[in-house]
Amino acid sequence: MKVTVCRHEHFNAAHRLHHPAWTAEKNTAVFGKCNNPNFHGHNYELIVKLRGDIDPETGYVFDMKKLSDLIKLEIIDKFDHKNLNLDTSEFQNLNPTAENLAVVIWNLLRQKISNNYALSVTLYETDRNFVEYNGQI
Amino acid sequence: MKVTVCRHEHFNAAHRLHHPAWTAEKNTAVFGKCNNPNFHGHNYELIVKLRGDIDPETGYVFDMKKLSDLIKLEIIDKFDHKNLNLDTSEFQNLNPTAENLAVVIWNLLRQKISNNYALSVTLYETDRNFVEYNGQI
Amino acid sequence: MKVTVCRHEHFNAAHRLHHPAWTAEKNTAVFGKCNNPNFHGHNYELIVKLRGDIDPETGYVFDMKKLSDLIKLEIIDKFDHKNLNLDTSEFQNLNPTAENLAVVIWNLLRQKISNNYALSVTLYETDRNFVEYNGQI
Amino acid sequence: MKVTVCRHEHFNAAHRLHHPAWTAEKNTAVFGKCNNPNFHGHNYELIVKLRGDIDPETGYVFDMKKLSDLIKLEIIDKFDHKNLNLDTSEFQNLNPTAENLAVVIWNLLRQKISNNYALSVTLYETDRNFVEYNGQI
Amino acid sequence: MKVTVCRHEHFNAAHRLHHPAWTAEKNTAVFGKCNNPNFHGHNYELIVKLRGDIDPETGYVFDMKKLSDLIKLEIIDKFDHKNLNLDTSEFQNLNPTAENLAVVIWNLLRQKISNNYALSVTLYETDRNFVEYNGQI
Amino acid sequence: MKVTVCRHEHFNAAHRLHHPAWTAEKNTAVFGKCNNPNFHGHNYELIVKLRGDIDPETGYVFDMKKLSDLIKLEIIDKFDHKNLNLDTSEFQNLNPTAENLAVVIWNLLRQKISNNYALSVTLYETDRNFVEYNGQI
Repeated sequence: MKVTVCRHEHFNAAHRLHHPAWTAEKNTAVFGKCNNPNFHGHNYELIVKLRGDIDPETGYVFDMKKLSDLIKLEIIDKFDHKNLNLDTSEFQNLNPTAENLAVVIWNLLRQKISNNYALSVTLYETDRNFVEYNGQI
Repeated sequence: MKVTVCRHEHFNAAHRLHHPAWTAEKNTAVFGKCNNPNFHGHNYELIVKLRGDIDPETGYVFDMKKLSDLIKLEIIDKFDHKNLNLDTSEFQNLNPTAENLAVVIWNLLRQKISNNYALSVTLYETDRNFVEYNGQI
Repeated sequence: MKVTVCRHEHFNAAHRLHHPAWTAEKNTAVFGKCNNPNFHGHNYELIVKLRGDIDPETGYVFDMKKLSDLIKLEIIDKFDHKNLNLDTSEFQNLNPTAENLAVVIWNLLRQKISNNYALSVTLYETDRNFVEYNGQI
Repeated sequence: MKVTVCRHEHFNAAHRLHHPAWTAEKNTAVFGKCNNPNFHGHNYELIVKLRGDIDPETGYVFDMKKLSDLIKLEIIDKFDHKNLNLDTSEFQNLNPTAENLAVVIWNLLRQKISNNYALSVTLYETDRNFVEYNGQI
Repeated sequence: MKVTVCRHEHFNAAHRLHHPAWTAEKNTAVFGKCNNPNFHGHNYELIVKLRGDIDPETGYVFDMKKLSDLIKLEIIDKFDHKNLNLDTSEFQNLNPTAENLAVVIWNLLRQKISNNYALSVTLYETDRNFVEYNGQI
Repeated sequence: MKVTVCRHEHFNAAHRLHHPAWTAEKNTAVFGKCNNPNFHGHNYELIVKLRGDIDPETGYVFDMKKLSDLIKLEIIDKFDHKNLNLDTSEFQNLNPTAENLAVVIWNLLRQKISNNYALSVTLYETDRNFVEYNGQI
């Protein structure tokens, strides 16, 4: 009997979409306003989902307080109130699109969560743009 | 051609997370503030999803009015403005976590909905904590 | 590494649920207030999801600006501020239920989006009633 | 000690913005897509606010169940699943803009609610467009 | 130049609406399901608003981090995961309606916030029922 | 008969809270993570409210399409996908707090909107922090 538990957290960050090997013209053509060299930013809304068995003693799939603490330690402390391009090692050579950020977050969490749980993340860059990643190929 | 129809309902209830065979210390260590012996409560938001074929005559997968009535009869009337621990037979010997409540709701609805429909439920305990269950193992 | 990108758009429309071969009594019995001959209407909220590979150069699965433009061109321009029954070719002989509208939208978008992407749509008719369709049978 | 109690209800309706004395060209110039002769529609979200004294016996300013019942009887039953232009006496000679609809709703409620309460209404035509009216000049 | 700063917090609690001097019949007639002797509960959403001058040095009316900390200390720690009737001194002899709870919260905060600021609170008991209080008579 | 019409728009921007005459230590003590020299960012949600008379011919207080166009021209084009500190003249010598940003937006709009209308703005920096300004002292 598999149940999915979901935890909603948030963080704020600045970023710039940019390809270093491209000309300014091509960067503007592809990334538009998101290529602003002085950065822009977002309130990122993050939902982390774990699918697993209910522990018959606790009635929990995963203690949501512990899940919240884990997300804060591994994700929020790293990205909140940061410049994704300048302040984080993950995006030194990776464009901080919502897609790439979701994969980075999933990889960071995957290392800390037992493989007894299927893991997926939903990341809202804005209310209108969001992405989902569950590690499948 | 399978389409999923989804209905959003809500109810309010009190509950307490507690394991009767554990000491007070262990209950507090595991369940924290949720172990308050005097209970606390939530506005539960429930989404019920049915996946099935579109009836070519009506254009409906399932009449949403009838789905709403069914959820009210089987779920809302049973749990709304109730104490899950004290007022319901389902949680006499089951800890009323969001996980267990989602499974109980799914089982109650599964008995009343034709197996022509795949059934899943999403239950929000708060805006930040929610669970999903679709009966799969 | 498959990531799903999701875009949220909206449109407003009038509609009436009606079966032309049925009596007025049967139409009222089945469709209730939705059978009003003078129509009623909704703010439809539409989420379009594309699942595909991240382009290693851009970091995009699909340019969200282009996805928004495509949805506006193919869906919003066709349905926004329209009467689904009277103003659109798609519903001349098809009841404009949320289920049928989701399938129509999916079919319109499927023709314009490469098969490298899995496509699904979620359509909210109200906050309480919504449908999902991904083309699977 | 004045407290304001607020109740949120909703209804769906079709409408058309139109001035009968104007040419088709002028109607289109002023009302744009909202002038569609076949109507369009909305999910209207209505918030009714009453400001008054707390009854020391009940702790209520106004029983919210009774407020909900009153709104249903006076407003929802009249406008839900209706065509504002064709199905209601209020808009036979009045353009059903959000502004006029809010004033009509306020006037209908004002007749049924004691003058011990200050009354205001907020009406969402869409998530992006809404109006407020409190009867002041 | 007066600006209003607003902070949104939340807490969960159980409560029962009841008048000790009334018969069970009258309590049921007035409070309905909210009179359940075993309690029910809510996710309370609280918005605290302070109106004052912008400090020309900081650009703040009030440091939102300090406002959040103050609300947590004075309100959330007191009411979160509590039974309002049984666990709090404020409601020993006061019915824990949303109206009374908003006034109690306002009074608690008013003692801790300089009179340089006008203070108001908005308290959501559910998405559909909420109250506002600003201390005016 | 005064009615308030409200329009909701949004923009994304990067910013840094900083006082140039203070030491790094004092800036950190006052502004915390918001003082990050590499900036962070937000999805700003903006609600503009105009209070005025209903035009008896149109039924409008103010054409919402024109209000949206005006906000886009005067506010969104100036701030969207920008770094408030580096890319805008308004914040060369003004700390881009939510409070100051609301006042700047109000002043920009006030110059373009007839004094027949009372004007107020609500600016959400996050879901939890927002400010209101109406030009009153």
